[in-house]
Amino acid sequence: MKIGLLIIGNEILEGKITDLNTRSLALFLRGLHLELETTLTVQDTENAIKNGLKLLFDQCDVVVTSGGLGPTRDDLTKEMMASFFNKKISFSEDSYQVALKNYQRFNRPFESKEHGYCFLPEGFTALENTTGFAPCLFAEFSGKFLLCGPGVPKEFNSLLNDHFENLILTRFPQNNHVIESFTARTKRIPEEKIFGEVDPSLWNKLSAYGTVSSLPTVMGVDVGIKLVASNKSELELKKKEILEIFKSSPLSSAIWQFGNTPLEEFIVSLANKKNITYGFAESCTGGLCSHRLTNIAGSSQTFLGSVVCYSEKIKSSSLGVSAQTLSTFSAVSSETAAEMSSGLAKKFGVDIALSITGLAGPGGGSEDKPVGTAFVGVTSKGQTLTHRLQLFGDREQLKLRFSQAVLFYLLEELENFA
Amino acid sequence: MKIGLLIIGNEILEGKITDLNTRSLALFLRGLHLELETTLTVQDTENAIKNGLKLLFDQCDVVVTSGGLGPTRDDLTKEMMASFFNKKISFSEDSYQVALKNYQRFNRPFESKEHGYCFLPEGFTALENTTGFAPCLFAEFSGKFLLCGPGVPKEFNSLLNDHFENLILTRFPQNNHVIESFTARTKRIPEEKIFGEVDPSLWNKLSAYGTVSSLPTVMGVDVGIKLVASNKSELELKKKEILEIFKSSPLSSAIWQFGNTPLEEFIVSLANKKNITYGFAESCTGGLCSHRLTNIAGSSQTFLGSVVCYSEKIKSSSLGVSAQTLSTFSAVSSETAAEMSSGLAKKFGVDIALSITGLAGPGGGSEDKPVGTAFVGVTSKGQTLTHRLQLFGDREQLKLRFSQAVLFYLLEELENFA
Repeated sequence: MKIGLLIIGNEILEGKITDLNTRSLALFLRGLHLELETTLTVQDTENAIKNGLKLLFDQCDVVVTSGGLGPTRDDLTKEMMASFFNKKISFSEDSYQVALKNYQRFNRPFESKEHGYCFLPEGFTALENTTGFAPCLFAEFSGKFLLCGPGVPKEFNSLLNDHFENLILTRFPQNNHVIESFTARTKRIPEEKIFGEVDPSLWNKLSAYGTVSSLPTVMGVDVGIKLVASNKSELELKKKEILEIFKSSPLSSAIWQFGNTPLEEFIVSLANKKNITYGFAESCTGGLCSHRLTNIAGSSQTFLGSVVCYSEKIKSSSLGVSAQTLSTFSAVSSETAAEMSSGLAKKFGVDIALSITGLAGPGGGSEDKPVGTAFVGVTSKGQTLTHRLQLFGDREQLKLRFSQAVLFYLLEELENFA
Repeated sequence: MKIGLLIIGNEILEGKITDLNTRSLALFLRGLHLELETTLTVQDTENAIKNGLKLLFDQCDVVVTSGGLGPTRDDLTKEMMASFFNKKISFSEDSYQVALKNYQRFNRPFESKEHGYCFLPEGFTALENTTGFAPCLFAEFSGKFLLCGPGVPKEFNSLLNDHFENLILTRFPQNNHVIESFTARTKRIPEEKIFGEVDPSLWNKLSAYGTVSSLPTVMGVDVGIKLVASNKSELELKKKEILEIFKSSPLSSAIWQFGNTPLEEFIVSLANKKNITYGFAESCTGGLCSHRLTNIAGSSQTFLGSVVCYSEKIKSSSLGVSAQTLSTFSAVSSETAAEMSSGLAKKFGVDIALSITGLAGPGGGSEDKPVGTAFVGVTSKGQTLTHRLQLFGDREQLKLRFSQAVLFYLLEELENFA
């Protein structure tokens, strides 16, 4: 089955936004052992859209489109689809009902049957959009499939998750196999070292069980094995053997999870399970550690709060970092990090307090403390330890990597906390 | 002049990385008053690359390629180019010299004349790469131009900056038109209302000047017009007239910027220019307001810090919210929001303090305060105002929308601060 993506949207070709949907679709298809053949991005014009459709349908069995389904007049996708397939557009009670449901999901009124959302090209099906308002579209013509989703990444993702399998996959005969991805998530070891100096035989050992892949993420690499088995018990056996391979590998100490749970969720669930409270004193991460954990529902059970101490004044007044420490060692030092975390632990009364102070750049670096330097303080049960980080990247990447380092220290502290 | 981008690289179609080069090229071209016609991403195979080249050359005068120039076996671009144009590949002294220079720039040895970097298809020119090792390529065939760069974003950017103007632009001396995008960024009005009840004639008025588009972002819509003019002064005149249309529209009070600066950067630069200090007391946004502003270099000049007061205990102990307020009105109330912002202003000594307390969900809502409810406190010059928000979305969307609301209130306060 060949699958192509047509991205409709001037915003991308004008450089206003970066396309994230290619990656989503690619990862989604990878999970189904399918691959993305090609992606074509075209402008919001009749010619460009129709040429794009033609081109992709020449090459592919399934064309997924993204963008141009909104309510304004530059959202041309539906009209172009109708024109391309030579179909009439008319009012559709089904599409009206779908739009109504999409609005009701957000407690928003949707009355007008005149709304563009209620019109549909002949032969098309309107699909519920569980994360937005615009109905998605599906059509099948001469054995080829068309699935149209919104450009908004979240909505595009839910189109895939909600409809792709039902509408597309069931129409292609599948092998009677059980398929599962096994993932080992590692921390702090660069991709090139994992299968090199750390464990040179690991790749070959794992390859006996399926296709091995390695996906670098922030400060960690996810090692994945695509398992194919003829039945569930064979699959379980394979998983057990793979687990043994990882556990006896020198890589094992760097593995923090077998599975795909995001780090934030993993931490919140562990802290809540053990009922351990925590908080951050954030300088160079500027609130990102707190933001990441509060993205998880339920985080309020054990995350009490943080101080974002961007200025020296706040470091002193809110956390009690001494003026002498700041003047002798500077704000970016292990001494300051230690006083920040111990100050927060006292002030907020949390079980674990973590601090970070560093240089996210672009300015402010020096020879012995270049941009990318940071100090982390960890206070737990009255004891404070500090760590020095030396990371790389631009300002936003550094903030993300700094926060990731802090979260890994928090995770380790939670694991060891008795 | 029509320009297309061919992206060669399985990494993107496998979802391992996100394409950043489309945006770079688009923004680069916009700076030259040119536009990107289309982007095509293909796999690293002979067929896909050749089909892609054919397709883009059918449509465009200039094709830029990204990827596949590296030293490994899956880097096929050069061979495919030779085969596509039916040219022989052979050793090129020029290419050797270019590679030598690329290596010398990084103090790395490059000796071997056998290296793939020294081979070039007939009629091609090797170009210096100022940020990497692989030489870039240029060719002109029957009045069409080909420029090949590496996939690494940094190197692709330097290809554009170092070579595009000299090699491509100078060959199109009679550029008979200039293109520019004009953007009006609005806040707090849903997309469907802008060209509906707010200003029904706006779309038509603007369309007289070029293609109108509307891009919904968080709590705001960017209205764009693609202007095409025969020369710079005509372009300036059009821009002036469009500005007048916007300024006399009922939409004008919702426009916070004519331009493309991100809100965070806009705020930081205004606060720094006026030298007004500020900070946040963040409950339901969990640090996101602070995180967003500290993404901007230079924010430390006026952003002093924040308290992420996720628990009631921290609201009391760190911001002085009274126990009575919390028990009488609850943590999610305008009374609590007011005490949070006034408490922060006093504690941190900032000129403007903003607070937010609300329900990001999924749980915790009630009939009169459903999920999506939040209260914002704004304290400035000893005075405190509060606002009630009622927004929609899932937890992450709500956090983002809440933070956007807070940033808009901050922006307005900064604008009015004398």
